[in-house]
Amino acid sequence: MSIEQLEQHVSFGGQQFKYKHQSDVLKSEVTFSLFLPSNPDGKKIPLIWWLSGLTCTDDNFTHKSGFQQWAEQHQVAVIAPDTSPRGDAADGDGYDLGHGAGFYVNATEEPWASHYHMYDYVTKELTGIVHELVPNFSGKESVMGHSMGGHGALVIGLRNQDRFASISAFAPILTPSKVPWGVKILTAYLGSDQETWKAWDSTALVAQDEVLPILVTQGTGDSFYPDQLTEQYFLAAAQKHGDQVTYEQQAGYDHSYYFIATFLKQHFDFHMNHLNS
Amino acid sequence: MSIEQLEQHVSFGGQQFKYKHQSDVLKSEVTFSLFLPSNPDGKKIPLIWWLSGLTCTDDNFTHKSGFQQWAEQHQVAVIAPDTSPRGDAADGDGYDLGHGAGFYVNATEEPWASHYHMYDYVTKELTGIVHELVPNFSGKESVMGHSMGGHGALVIGLRNQDRFASISAFAPILTPSKVPWGVKILTAYLGSDQETWKAWDSTALVAQDEVLPILVTQGTGDSFYPDQLTEQYFLAAAQKHGDQVTYEQQAGYDHSYYFIATFLKQHFDFHMNHLNS
Repeated sequence: MSIEQLEQHVSFGGQQFKYKHQSDVLKSEVTFSLFLPSNPDGKKIPLIWWLSGLTCTDDNFTHKSGFQQWAEQHQVAVIAPDTSPRGDAADGDGYDLGHGAGFYVNATEEPWASHYHMYDYVTKELTGIVHELVPNFSGKESVMGHSMGGHGALVIGLRNQDRFASISAFAPILTPSKVPWGVKILTAYLGSDQETWKAWDSTALVAQDEVLPILVTQGTGDSFYPDQLTEQYFLAAAQKHGDQVTYEQQAGYDHSYYFIATFLKQHFDFHMNHLNS
Repeated sequence: MSIEQLEQHVSFGGQQFKYKHQSDVLKSEVTFSLFLPSNPDGKKIPLIWWLSGLTCTDDNFTHKSGFQQWAEQHQVAVIAPDTSPRGDAADGDGYDLGHGAGFYVNATEEPWASHYHMYDYVTKELTGIVHELVPNFSGKESVMGHSMGGHGALVIGLRNQDRFASISAFAPILTPSKVPWGVKILTAYLGSDQETWKAWDSTALVAQDEVLPILVTQGTGDSFYPDQLTEQYFLAAAQKHGDQVTYEQQAGYDHSYYFIATFLKQHFDFHMNHLNS
């Protein structure tokens, strides 16, 4: 395993790193970013995963969200993967398929199946790497994301409930099986048998008997709401969990990082309540 | 005067705008960004100017600094101009001359003199525009910036002490007459007579009898420090002003927006002390 450090910056007292490595799972060279808090007291440090949306790399969150302020305040490490394989991996028609659109699934259809295994990359390969890179790692993890990455956070969290403490999402694709972005990508990566899509749809997954604490925040000024981000199916399936699942709307906020930056403190506070309990 | 609104985003409760307009002074179409706080109590609102560094547009500060959190908390408007004329304006050899490198001076040498008047653009033309765009403007202003824009903030503030309440800078070019970036640009824009450079050098300007409150923050891990950002001449000239001029170094921080974001709250607190007094 060879990992090359590309950047290191002091930020709010902690350290913001960017790395690249050759992924065995993605058969592609990819980057990821990792924030380590200063940890002046040598305590055990938990880890939050951030999964970005369509067209993004790990840079969008690292450059634009201001998360380092909250991560240092709470003394938590934060890992941000890229959103898809790159390089020789097949690319798609449009911004919403292929490069930048990994969708956090394991593709079974060609030309995607040979590289597009973002679920295994995040939950296995990069997990192994980052657990080694966080000094004094406490073993406790939470997962959050935006848009396509909000879908990724919900799917990865709900499929691995024994591993994570909590899940949150900004403007997530809650029901990919029923919205244009999801139908296009799931058809391409998994084929047209919709039975196979259920394992990758948070609306299907949230119907299980018990779920982790979940927080979802959606702006009402989001140009992708409600068409791509409809909440009705998810909330119907989640209703039986009561206040374990919180869905909030914020008036006027759009799909941008201005929205994410505004409510990120609230999401960090939410996760830290569960990571510290 | 025709101004086109390009973007509007809710951010931390306030509004982040981006505009473009045809500048008479720059003879160029340029953009600028303006944050307006929510002002729930209908109070008088002061204005802070942010001047960006080499290669930047108005976007770098708006996207990467997280300033909106502090501007909304303090209920202050913030204007961020572009850093140079664009389009047909002459471009230079390298990132440090021409487009992205306006240096906040009025050029007298061709091919620059026909467009490169960023000092007049900021202090006159854009001033007139933004004073109309801020509802309930209090008439009080401060100025801050980064690197080339830190130089710009010091020069504009020190040449207009009756207008501004305070000046601050992150990693500024403090003595352009003596460092490679400054010598290259001042020679091109103003010619080789160094007498003419003094009106654009904060080390010469800070030697006047009385100065506004000034705060400068410099990271010790900055790859441009000390060669381009040497402080010795400026601090010698400023010594007579005592604690009216504060120069701080922060261990390990580099030249990036990670550095700016970390210490921006401190700079906003500094300016608001003077804008509210």
